[in-house]
Amino acid sequence: MALLTRITGPRDLDGLNHEQLDQLAQEIRTFLITSVAKTGGHLGPNLGVVELTIALHRVFDSPADRILWDTGHQSYVHKLLTGRQDFSRLRARGGLAGYPSQTESEHDVIENSHASTVLGWADGLAKANQLMGRDNHVVAVTGDGALTGGMAWEAMNNIAAAQDRPLVIVVNDNERSYSPTIGGLADHLATLRMTDGYERFLTRGKELLNRTPVVGKPLHDALHGAKKGLKDIIAPQGMFEDLGLKYVGPIDGHDLPALESALLRAKRFGGPVIVHCLTEKGRGYQPARDDEADQFHAVGVIHPDTGLPVSVGGADWTSVFEDEIVRIGREREDIVAITAAMLRPVGLKKFADEFPHRVYDVGIAEQHGAVSAAGLAFGGLHPVFAVYATFLNRAFDQLLMDVALHRLGVTFVLDRAGITGPDGPSHHGMWDMSLLQVVPGLRLAAPRDAEQLRLQLREAVQVRDAPTVVRYSKGAVGPAVPAVGAVGGMDVLRGPAEGEERPDVLLLSIGALAPVCLEAAELLGQQGITTTVVDPRWVKPVDPALPGLAARHRVVVTVEDNCRAGGVGAAVAQALRDAEVDIPVRNFGIPPQFQEHASRGELLSSLGLTGPDIARQVTGLVARLENPLNATPTA
Amino acid sequence: MALLTRITGPRDLDGLNHEQLDQLAQEIRTFLITSVAKTGGHLGPNLGVVELTIALHRVFDSPADRILWDTGHQSYVHKLLTGRQDFSRLRARGGLAGYPSQTESEHDVIENSHASTVLGWADGLAKANQLMGRDNHVVAVTGDGALTGGMAWEAMNNIAAAQDRPLVIVVNDNERSYSPTIGGLADHLATLRMTDGYERFLTRGKELLNRTPVVGKPLHDALHGAKKGLKDIIAPQGMFEDLGLKYVGPIDGHDLPALESALLRAKRFGGPVIVHCLTEKGRGYQPARDDEADQFHAVGVIHPDTGLPVSVGGADWTSVFEDEIVRIGREREDIVAITAAMLRPVGLKKFADEFPHRVYDVGIAEQHGAVSAAGLAFGGLHPVFAVYATFLNRAFDQLLMDVALHRLGVTFVLDRAGITGPDGPSHHGMWDMSLLQVVPGLRLAAPRDAEQLRLQLREAVQVRDAPTVVRYSKGAVGPAVPAVGAVGGMDVLRGPAEGEERPDVLLLSIGALAPVCLEAAELLGQQGITTTVVDPRWVKPVDPALPGLAARHRVVVTVEDNCRAGGVGAAVAQALRDAEVDIPVRNFGIPPQFQEHASRGELLSSLGLTGPDIARQVTGLVARLENPLNATPTA
Repeated sequence: MALLTRITGPRDLDGLNHEQLDQLAQEIRTFLITSVAKTGGHLGPNLGVVELTIALHRVFDSPADRILWDTGHQSYVHKLLTGRQDFSRLRARGGLAGYPSQTESEHDVIENSHASTVLGWADGLAKANQLMGRDNHVVAVTGDGALTGGMAWEAMNNIAAAQDRPLVIVVNDNERSYSPTIGGLADHLATLRMTDGYERFLTRGKELLNRTPVVGKPLHDALHGAKKGLKDIIAPQGMFEDLGLKYVGPIDGHDLPALESALLRAKRFGGPVIVHCLTEKGRGYQPARDDEADQFHAVGVIHPDTGLPVSVGGADWTSVFEDEIVRIGREREDIVAITAAMLRPVGLKKFADEFPHRVYDVGIAEQHGAVSAAGLAFGGLHPVFAVYATFLNRAFDQLLMDVALHRLGVTFVLDRAGITGPDGPSHHGMWDMSLLQVVPGLRLAAPRDAEQLRLQLREAVQVRDAPTVVRYSKGAVGPAVPAVGAVGGMDVLRGPAEGEERPDVLLLSIGALAPVCLEAAELLGQQGITTTVVDPRWVKPVDPALPGLAARHRVVVTVEDNCRAGGVGAAVAQALRDAEVDIPVRNFGIPPQFQEHASRGELLSSLGLTGPDIARQVTGLVARLENPLNATPTA
Repeated sequence: MALLTRITGPRDLDGLNHEQLDQLAQEIRTFLITSVAKTGGHLGPNLGVVELTIALHRVFDSPADRILWDTGHQSYVHKLLTGRQDFSRLRARGGLAGYPSQTESEHDVIENSHASTVLGWADGLAKANQLMGRDNHVVAVTGDGALTGGMAWEAMNNIAAAQDRPLVIVVNDNERSYSPTIGGLADHLATLRMTDGYERFLTRGKELLNRTPVVGKPLHDALHGAKKGLKDIIAPQGMFEDLGLKYVGPIDGHDLPALESALLRAKRFGGPVIVHCLTEKGRGYQPARDDEADQFHAVGVIHPDTGLPVSVGGADWTSVFEDEIVRIGREREDIVAITAAMLRPVGLKKFADEFPHRVYDVGIAEQHGAVSAAGLAFGGLHPVFAVYATFLNRAFDQLLMDVALHRLGVTFVLDRAGITGPDGPSHHGMWDMSLLQVVPGLRLAAPRDAEQLRLQLREAVQVRDAPTVVRYSKGAVGPAVPAVGAVGGMDVLRGPAEGEERPDVLLLSIGALAPVCLEAAELLGQQGITTTVVDPRWVKPVDPALPGLAARHRVVVTVEDNCRAGGVGAAVAQALRDAEVDIPVRNFGIPPQFQEHASRGELLSSLGLTGPDIARQVTGLVARLENPLNATPTA
């Protein structure tokens, strides 16, 4: 790391010659492989942009010029070149974020990890530069996959409309987004296929192949694969130029001199220009390059030589869904599945293997996922759209206006709901149970364990005239939490003590927090406070039996892994008011604030979503209710 | 109306010869002009699609074949041809909806009036047809403006990916969406300009000009305007074909034989195909054709001969904003404005006239409106994005993840918030005050009168580190509602009676419902119930002084023109619980159900959002609190 450790900022790159730059690239790759193997993180995407990032920081002068990253998980190299080389606590509490972060560096802008936003940001920033009379450059780095998102189209239309605003769009084309890029855009490459540039690139690749030991069969295969399945490269050169965007490319994204020359041309152009770079995800790391399934997009802790996981956890929520939806698919031919470019991460791979004609990967296009689901449902099928909870926000209008308004049976399966952990503020799935409260007719399930997930998924796909949602956490699914009784459609997890006429607390446990609630109840019991723990199972609509049950307690406490504002607790409280059950209610959940990266356990703990914390709070509450003199003054 | 009245369904068109069809088209235009002048409605768009709709229903067999309309305000002719000719109560309670409606007819599918959805629906329906082995056709009718929306791009990518699914996309290109179509897509028409087809169309247009009296100077001008400013026609023939979509056109959208022939070709093609029709909005109606400003897109009640409004109302909310933002713009150079293709309807015309370089029309692209605002704000400006409240749902993720997460000062001005009226379920702006509750740092104002709107808009643009929202109703702004005092940042609109230690009711009045709340308080006073009426002005965050104020009352009642679920009332109740102020709270608002078309007054009345209704409910509540024996049994 002789060179890398000497780079404290982008301008330190200026004095390096090309031999040194090659060495630097090599050092960065070694650093990434060693370091990310220890911490987990986005390995493949960053290995692919080593030369590109070096070239960007040599040609442009950050932060005066703004280098903007779409889906910032490809910003590790950028971090290394802008004074951040301590990766030991990457994505862990107090360590570097997995995405750009303005608090980390003046070189960072977009912290949001949702794809396809960069061109919009760039358009806004270029407009601001123009109005304020600044001649700084704006560079947007986006991927081929992100271009399948509608926001990219909206932005391109606006960018192309103003030929007097300089803006460089770098398309980092690694031939797949998360999974192979799909769609018509990718299917039609006649223009590119015919260009000399691409042929030259192929030829150069073959030469490299024979010359460079580290580039071996994989590159050859990749190139031939690319040539065979040119469909997997986005190359809408003609289209971009139709829109009025100057096009430069394609450029070998691992050829530093070529990159610098193309970026310099683009920089001097003075209007909007696209620089199309072909890169190789996982470049320089055998296990990642061999990886057909793209599992090195993001990795946990792995052994750096083999790329194999160091520890293997138990069953996770995703795999419970993955197996059950296949079983349901066998029983019902009308079940079809939808994913927005995340077939494996959301657990649809087995379904796709068994029912290849009944799964639709719509690209990074959640809006289309939802609206095409409406069309499928109207046509007589039952679509199951599996998506990360945080990304559902992008399809809210379509869920409301296309699915719910038309009373269509579409099931949304929300993975990574609640506090997720290392991916930080834009990956926590903490919004869904609030947003969805307003959707007429929608039924929302928050299963507490694997068995409930299987059961509620089956209940969800039975609903033919309204959207249904099943939401669950990220990671390992906890042990089974059996019901000891039922009230209405709700499961009683812990009943009041024998003969207890009016227990103190009704504790409503939402989803995966059931063990936390049971622990809290146990601790409360030790304080002499009697508690009934109930899992409503379907948290929307509020179970009609709830007000009656609540009225038999002295206080109601709700616990959810979701934003407190407008969440399940707020809905329960309103239902009680509507029924004129005016007993005190308290809501535990995530405050409406962005939550930084840290482990799920650390975050739940800091938010007070643990058994002891909840027990302590409720104990104080019950004491104040018994003796109002202890109450906090409020007036 | 000799022919029109004989059409009871699409198949009645089969027996008509072309002379009769011309007569039918003429009758339909006369009917629309006469009828819509009486009721108000979308006149211009429907006059433009008379021949197109006839041709669609002759070539395709609805409802076996599905004819889907984007932004269904262009479905009046479709309604006339499918058995719905009583337009006397168009968009009024109990009358025909202004959009397609499944309860009205088996020929209707998409009821949602939000643009750019039709291609997604069509993709879903075509997939369903394929899976279910049906050989019915799917026809999607979209406008040039709707193609600027990202959803259209997402859908086209998916549609083009499957060449084996028949799907006809009719682009009804009237050279403007609501206002002239903007963007790079529209700017680059070299391909089309060069095609014989377009030249032939121009020539034919000129011939028509000399031959047909009803087509006169306007067509000539339109054609020349179109030729001069070809930028205003979307014509991405090359682009569509790059994507893999077969392209047919451009077709003269008022030439019935040409239309039928093109549609027949498209129908027989067997894969996805685009039929590009050039139509003239307002065709056949001189006032609409002369209308540069597109005011005939939607009209109120007008005189059919002149097109002039029959009655002119007082000042409306929009114009109060329109004037004030110009004044603010004069004082602050950093204020820029954004609209999503609705410059006039949202009240930005005067701003655009005075500051042409400081306004951005992004197309029908709310996502881009919000994300480019983030870029503008990061670049040092203060963007004001004026948009209908219901359309903000489309930019929720961008507001949350791009604006709020990055702590940027962007002001969202939500027009048409709350119950709007005749446009029906997808136009009511009843979701915003619920959704926005979860957005960290966001401040939300609901001004109660014109003066407050001016004041709060100014307060909003002062906030530099968080999104701010100002939301107001549709239509006439009511009389000024003066404050008689203040508690914290809240205005007291009606104080408790002199010497009253503990009034019965704290009535929280949100936004334009202040007069309703004051009337309710007056009626309550007549029952001996004392009421304090407070307008919180900023409804998010909850004013810190509220719990203390509430604690001095016996019951808190909230009244809002927004969905009850998760709305201001729910937030207030949660804030009181957090402060351990456990007094009864009741929330009045719109239930989380879709609301049909009717006048705003009728809807508010049916929802119980009137002074007498609220007074009656609160009287009953207070009585039950005094004597619990009167309480509704809940257990």
